[in-house]
Amino acid sequence: MAEQSPLLVVTAHPGDFVWRAGGALAQAACRGQRAVIACLSFGERGESAAAWRAGKTLEEIKDVRRAEAETAAEILGGEVHFFDAGDYPLRETPELLTSLVELYREVQPGVVLTHAPEDPYNMDHPEAGRIARHARVLAQAPGVVGTGDVIGAPPVFCFEPHQPEVSGFVPDVLLDITEVWERKVAAMQAMGAQGHLVEYYTDLGKRRGVQAKRNSGPNLGLPVNTFAEAYHRVYPQVTSELS
Amino acid sequence: MAEQSPLLVVTAHPGDFVWRAGGALAQAACRGQRAVIACLSFGERGESAAAWRAGKTLEEIKDVRRAEAETAAEILGGEVHFFDAGDYPLRETPELLTSLVELYREVQPGVVLTHAPEDPYNMDHPEAGRIARHARVLAQAPGVVGTGDVIGAPPVFCFEPHQPEVSGFVPDVLLDITEVWERKVAAMQAMGAQGHLVEYYTDLGKRRGVQAKRNSGPNLGLPVNTFAEAYHRVYPQVTSELS
Amino acid sequence: MAEQSPLLVVTAHPGDFVWRAGGALAQAACRGQRAVIACLSFGERGESAAAWRAGKTLEEIKDVRRAEAETAAEILGGEVHFFDAGDYPLRETPELLTSLVELYREVQPGVVLTHAPEDPYNMDHPEAGRIARHARVLAQAPGVVGTGDVIGAPPVFCFEPHQPEVSGFVPDVLLDITEVWERKVAAMQAMGAQGHLVEYYTDLGKRRGVQAKRNSGPNLGLPVNTFAEAYHRVYPQVTSELS
Amino acid sequence: MAEQSPLLVVTAHPGDFVWRAGGALAQAACRGQRAVIACLSFGERGESAAAWRAGKTLEEIKDVRRAEAETAAEILGGEVHFFDAGDYPLRETPELLTSLVELYREVQPGVVLTHAPEDPYNMDHPEAGRIARHARVLAQAPGVVGTGDVIGAPPVFCFEPHQPEVSGFVPDVLLDITEVWERKVAAMQAMGAQGHLVEYYTDLGKRRGVQAKRNSGPNLGLPVNTFAEAYHRVYPQVTSELS
Amino acid sequence: MAEQSPLLVVTAHPGDFVWRAGGALAQAACRGQRAVIACLSFGERGESAAAWRAGKTLEEIKDVRRAEAETAAEILGGEVHFFDAGDYPLRETPELLTSLVELYREVQPGVVLTHAPEDPYNMDHPEAGRIARHARVLAQAPGVVGTGDVIGAPPVFCFEPHQPEVSGFVPDVLLDITEVWERKVAAMQAMGAQGHLVEYYTDLGKRRGVQAKRNSGPNLGLPVNTFAEAYHRVYPQVTSELS
Amino acid sequence: MAEQSPLLVVTAHPGDFVWRAGGALAQAACRGQRAVIACLSFGERGESAAAWRAGKTLEEIKDVRRAEAETAAEILGGEVHFFDAGDYPLRETPELLTSLVELYREVQPGVVLTHAPEDPYNMDHPEAGRIARHARVLAQAPGVVGTGDVIGAPPVFCFEPHQPEVSGFVPDVLLDITEVWERKVAAMQAMGAQGHLVEYYTDLGKRRGVQAKRNSGPNLGLPVNTFAEAYHRVYPQVTSELS
Repeated sequence: MAEQSPLLVVTAHPGDFVWRAGGALAQAACRGQRAVIACLSFGERGESAAAWRAGKTLEEIKDVRRAEAETAAEILGGEVHFFDAGDYPLRETPELLTSLVELYREVQPGVVLTHAPEDPYNMDHPEAGRIARHARVLAQAPGVVGTGDVIGAPPVFCFEPHQPEVSGFVPDVLLDITEVWERKVAAMQAMGAQGHLVEYYTDLGKRRGVQAKRNSGPNLGLPVNTFAEAYHRVYPQVTSELS
Repeated sequence: MAEQSPLLVVTAHPGDFVWRAGGALAQAACRGQRAVIACLSFGERGESAAAWRAGKTLEEIKDVRRAEAETAAEILGGEVHFFDAGDYPLRETPELLTSLVELYREVQPGVVLTHAPEDPYNMDHPEAGRIARHARVLAQAPGVVGTGDVIGAPPVFCFEPHQPEVSGFVPDVLLDITEVWERKVAAMQAMGAQGHLVEYYTDLGKRRGVQAKRNSGPNLGLPVNTFAEAYHRVYPQVTSELS
Repeated sequence: MAEQSPLLVVTAHPGDFVWRAGGALAQAACRGQRAVIACLSFGERGESAAAWRAGKTLEEIKDVRRAEAETAAEILGGEVHFFDAGDYPLRETPELLTSLVELYREVQPGVVLTHAPEDPYNMDHPEAGRIARHARVLAQAPGVVGTGDVIGAPPVFCFEPHQPEVSGFVPDVLLDITEVWERKVAAMQAMGAQGHLVEYYTDLGKRRGVQAKRNSGPNLGLPVNTFAEAYHRVYPQVTSELS
Repeated sequence: MAEQSPLLVVTAHPGDFVWRAGGALAQAACRGQRAVIACLSFGERGESAAAWRAGKTLEEIKDVRRAEAETAAEILGGEVHFFDAGDYPLRETPELLTSLVELYREVQPGVVLTHAPEDPYNMDHPEAGRIARHARVLAQAPGVVGTGDVIGAPPVFCFEPHQPEVSGFVPDVLLDITEVWERKVAAMQAMGAQGHLVEYYTDLGKRRGVQAKRNSGPNLGLPVNTFAEAYHRVYPQVTSELS
Repeated sequence: MAEQSPLLVVTAHPGDFVWRAGGALAQAACRGQRAVIACLSFGERGESAAAWRAGKTLEEIKDVRRAEAETAAEILGGEVHFFDAGDYPLRETPELLTSLVELYREVQPGVVLTHAPEDPYNMDHPEAGRIARHARVLAQAPGVVGTGDVIGAPPVFCFEPHQPEVSGFVPDVLLDITEVWERKVAAMQAMGAQGHLVEYYTDLGKRRGVQAKRNSGPNLGLPVNTFAEAYHRVYPQVTSELS
Repeated sequence: MAEQSPLLVVTAHPGDFVWRAGGALAQAACRGQRAVIACLSFGERGESAAAWRAGKTLEEIKDVRRAEAETAAEILGGEVHFFDAGDYPLRETPELLTSLVELYREVQPGVVLTHAPEDPYNMDHPEAGRIARHARVLAQAPGVVGTGDVIGAPPVFCFEPHQPEVSGFVPDVLLDITEVWERKVAAMQAMGAQGHLVEYYTDLGKRRGVQAKRNSGPNLGLPVNTFAEAYHRVYPQVTSELS
C-alpha cells in the first residue's frame, strides 16, 4: 500500500515544511512511514529578519534555524536533511541537483511534496519546487550517474503558498490532518524565528478543514472540528475508485 | 465507505455513458453499488445520422436508441432513466431540472459523473453537464420543493469528451478499469448506431491505461495491460491519505 | 469626484450584500454617497435551510429574509430594492432586465459591485453577476426603452465568493474598510438565518486586512488592525496616478 | 501621499523607458517626485540594427545609445542609471542582482515599473522584468547584504510590450498622461536609433486614451483628446476607495 | 479548392461585418466566391444612439440601418440576409436557430466568420457568435429537420472585437487584405450611423498589416503598406504544408 | 513560395525529430526543400535506459544514438547536426546559443519546428524549445556577432509532447502527412533504443489523421486513411486566404 513507501518533502526554507506540510509529515510518521525532509537552505537571509536586525552573524542565524528545524522535525516525526544551498536567491547548481537525486534514490519515496510553481512574494519557493520536480525526473533515469537505484514515478503534490489566491494556487486536494493536528501545532510553536505565523496557520488549518467537510461526499464522516492542509496535484491521480 | 453509495451518471445521449463512463459503471455494479444512469435525450437527432439517412421516423429512431441503451446498461449492470428532453439542441427547462432533482434525491449518489464544460463539436454535451451540476446543487437545498430527502455533497467528475485536446479537457484522474474491461467492450459493441466508435474507444482505453501505469507511484501494482478511463474532478478531493 | 456618485450593489440574495460588500456599502454611506442595493431574490429557497426545516411557508420565509435584509441595510446606511425574481434557480427574464435597467438609470451609479463569473457551489451567484453586468450595458443605450437618462460607464467590481480559491476568483483590489468595520460586524449579526457565517467573515475581513498591509506601498499608512474586503475589477482601471 | 516617494523604472534597453513608460516618468517628475530609470543594457546588440549595418563598433553604438537615453531621460525629468549588463541575451548575474538591490535601497521607490512576463519577440524583456521583480523582493530582506535600508512593498506595474495581444498582456490600468503628452513626444523624438517607432507609439498613446475615456466612470472628466499608457498590475491594489 | 466554396459571415449587427470582416468579404467576392452575410439584428437599439437621440422611431432606425448595410454589402460584393431577431439583448430562439440552420444548408459555406466568445462591452456579440457556432453544428446533422442538405465541417474564425486586449481575444491569423483595402474603406464610409469608427478601423487595418509583415516568413513577400484583419481560429487548422 | 526555404527542426534528443516531426521532415525533403535537424544532445542519459542497464559506456551510448539518428535522418531525407550539449539536464550555455545562431544563419529556414513550452515528464524538452526560440530571435539581429546573414522571421511550430493532455499542449495545426507516412514508419523503426514507441506513434498518426478529416472543410478532399502530425503555432499565421 502507498503508505508503506516514504514521504519526501522538499522545501526552500525550514519553516515551509512546518507551515505547509507539517500535517502530512506527522500523519505519515504516525502511520509508520518514513518521513524525510530535504531543506535546501536555512532561510538564513530571507526568513530571518529579526535575527539580522538583532545583529546576529550569518553562522549564528543558520545555527538557530537549523536547531528550530530539527526540533520541529522531531516533533513531527520526520528526519531532516540540510543542503545549505543558500537562499535569497536560491539557485540551481549541478551539485545541488546531484545531491538531491541521490536523496531521491536513497529514500525511494512513494509521495513527494514541494512548492508550487508561482509565488510573487518569494522567488526561492518556485525555484525550490522546480528543482525538486526536476531532480525527481533525473532520479528515474539509469543514465544519470549517482549511487542508489533509480526511482519509479511517485506522485507529486504542491503545498499551499502563503497568499494562495494571488499565487495562482488552486487547491485540488484537501488532506484531513485532524488526527495529528496537535502535533502540527506543537511543531509550529517551535519555529521561534517566525512565531507570528502560528495564529495565521492555525486559522488556515481550521478553514481548510471546514472546506474539507463542505466538499466531502456523504461517506467520509469527517468530525465537526476537522483540520486540513491544501495541496495541488502535479500529475494525474491514478486510482481504482472514484471518491 | 464511499463505494456503498450509488453512482449516478448524467449524460446528454445514450452513447455517452457507454464510451465515456462504461468502465466506472461496470466497476460500481461489480462492487455491489447501485449504478444509475440519467440519459437526458435519446440522441435522436444528433447521434443517429445513419438512421435518418435510412428514412426512419423520429419515433422509430428513439425506440432503437432506447433499446440499445437498455442493452448496454444491462451489460454494465446499471439502471437507465430516460428523460426524453430532446437533443440538438438539448435545452434546460424547469421540468427537466425538477425531474433531475428528484432523481438525485431518490438515488442519494455518493459520486456523480457527467460531461465537461466544453465541447466545440457538440453543444448538447456541455449543456447536459451544466444541468447535471446545477441540479445537484438544487437537490441539496430543503427549500427546493420535491419528493425525497436533500442530498449531501457528492464529488463530481467530468468524463472525457471525444476530442479532449481541443475541448480544454485536462485529465486529472485516471480510473483503472482493467477488471471490468471486457464488460465495457461488450457494452460498446451493443451500440449499433455508433459502431464505428468501438475501435476508437478501445484504443483510448488502452492509451489511458498506459498513462495510468506511467503516472502511478511504486505501490499501485497495475498490471501490464491496464485499461483506464480519464476524468476531471470538479471539486477538491478530500482524503486522509496522499497517493 | 468619484465618491459623489452613488454606489450600486447587485446581489442574488440578501446575505451577499452583507458578507461580501458590507464594508464598501457602509463606507460609501459614511462618506455621504447614496448606497443602493438591488437584491434580486430573497434567497428564500437556497439560503434558508433552517427555516424550511422548521416548517415555515414560502411567504413566511420571504418575510423573514426581507426583514433581516432591511435591518442590515439600515445599519450599513444603504437602501435596499427587492426584485423578488426567485432563487434556486435565479433566471434572467425580460422583466427582470428591464427593472434593473430602470434602477441603473434612476441611480446613475458611479461604481457597481456584483457577483463574480464563477461559483461552483451556487449557480445563482454567477447568474446574478451576469444579469447585473448585462443590465449596465443596456442602460447605456438610448435605444433601450425605459424611464430615466442613460448612464455612463461606471467601473464594475466583483466581490468575493465564499470559496474563492476554487471559484477562479483572483482578488486584485483590497479595500481598506477599517473605519467602518464595526458597522459591518453589526450588519452581519443581523443576518439571523445565516448566523453561523459571522465568524467566518470576521476572520476573512482580518485576513484580507493583513494582506492589504502586506501589499501596500510605503505611503498608505494602514493601521495595525486593518480590515479589508477583496474585489476583482472587470474593466481596466483609469487613473491619473499609479499607486 | 504616494506621489512623494520616487518612481523607479527598470528596463532592458534604453528605448523601453521612453516608449512604454515615458508618460509615467514625465508625470512623476512634473509632480515633484524623483523619477529614476535603471537601464540594464544599452540595447547595443538587439536594438541597434541600423548602427551595426553602418559598420559602427560596439563601443560607438553604446555611446550613441547612452547619449540618446540621457537626452530622453532629461526631457522626461528622470535620472538614468546604466548597468551595462549586456543584451541579446541579457542574463541575470549575482553582480547585476546586487547592484539593483542597492539601487532599490538607495531610491526607496513608492512605485516600480518594469517589463511584463512574456514577449515572444524579445527575450530580454521578460528577463529584465523577472530580474526587477526579484531584486525588489531581495531588497526587502535585512539578511541580503548591501548598503542602504531595506525597502517596503512598493506596488509593481508591467508596462506594455510591443505586440500586446500576442504577448499575453492584459492592460488593467490605463494611466492618463495627457498633461505630459508633449513631453513624451519630445522624448520619443530623441530616440534616433529607433525613430520609426515614434508614429507607432503616438497612435498607441491616442488609442489607449480613447479606451481610458471609454472605461472611465462618470466622474473623471477626461478631456476629449486624452492620451494614456497601459499597465498591468502585479500585486493587488490596496485602496480606501473603489473607483 | 477552398476558395470555390462560399464565405459565410454571421454578425449581431450591420456594422460588424464591415469593420471586422469587410476585407475577408471583399477578397472572397473579388476571387469569385459567393460571400454571404447573416445579420441577426439591425443594431437598432444598441448601435444607433444618434438616431434615438434625434427622435427617430424604431422602424425608421431599422430602415436606415438596413439601407446602410445593403450599401456596404454591395460595395464589398456580398449578399446580406437580415434575421431581424432584435438586439440589446439579442437572444437565441428556436426560430432563429432554425432559420440560420437553413441558411447554412443553402449556402454550404467553405469558411465561417463570426464573433468571438467574449466582449464585456457588448453582450450581443458573444451571443451571436455562440448562436452561429451552434447552428453550424446543428446544420451538420441529418436528424435536425429543415430544407437543404447537411453541411460538412467548414473552419470557423472569430473576427476581432472592438477592444481586443480586454476581451480575451488572441489574434492567431492575420489576413492580408491589401488587394481589397480600398473597397473596405469605401464600405466603412457607407456606415453613416457609426462614421466615427472609420478612422479607428483604418488605423487598425494598418496596424494589423504591420504585424502581418513582422510575423511573416521570408517567402510571403508582403508589400510595404500591407493591410490586414485579425482572426482567431476555433478549430485546428488542417493543412498539407506548414507556413 | 514558402516550400522553397529550408525546414529547420530543433530537438533535445534524437528520437524527438522522428516521433514528433518525422512527417514534416520527410514531406519537406520529398518536395525538394532542404530539411535540417539540430539535435542538441544524444539523449545519452535520459533516453537510453536499456543501454545503461546493459552496461554500455557513455561514449558507446552516444555512438549508438548518433548512428540511429543518422539512419533515421537519411530515411527522412534530412541532414542532422549534432551539438552534443549534454542531456538530463540539458542547459543553455553561451556556446550552445552561439552555435545555434550560426546554424540558423547558415540554413536561413522558412519554417522552424521545436519543442513546446511544457512537459512535466522531461525537462530537457521545454529547455530545448526555449533555446531554439531564443536563438531564432538572436539570429535576426545584426548586432549579435557570428558568421552568416541575419535571418527573417520564420514561423515557429511546436510539435506534440508525449502526453499532450497533461502538458498543456493544444494542437491547432494538423499536418496531413499521408503521402510520406511509410517513410515516417521506416524512420521510426530505425530507432532501436526506443522501439517500444513505434506502435504508440503509429496509433497517434492515425488518430491525428482522423481528427484532420473531422476538422477539415469540404474542399480539402483528404483520403480515408489520412495520417497527420499535430503542431501548435507560436506566432500568428499570416495568410492571404482563410481556410
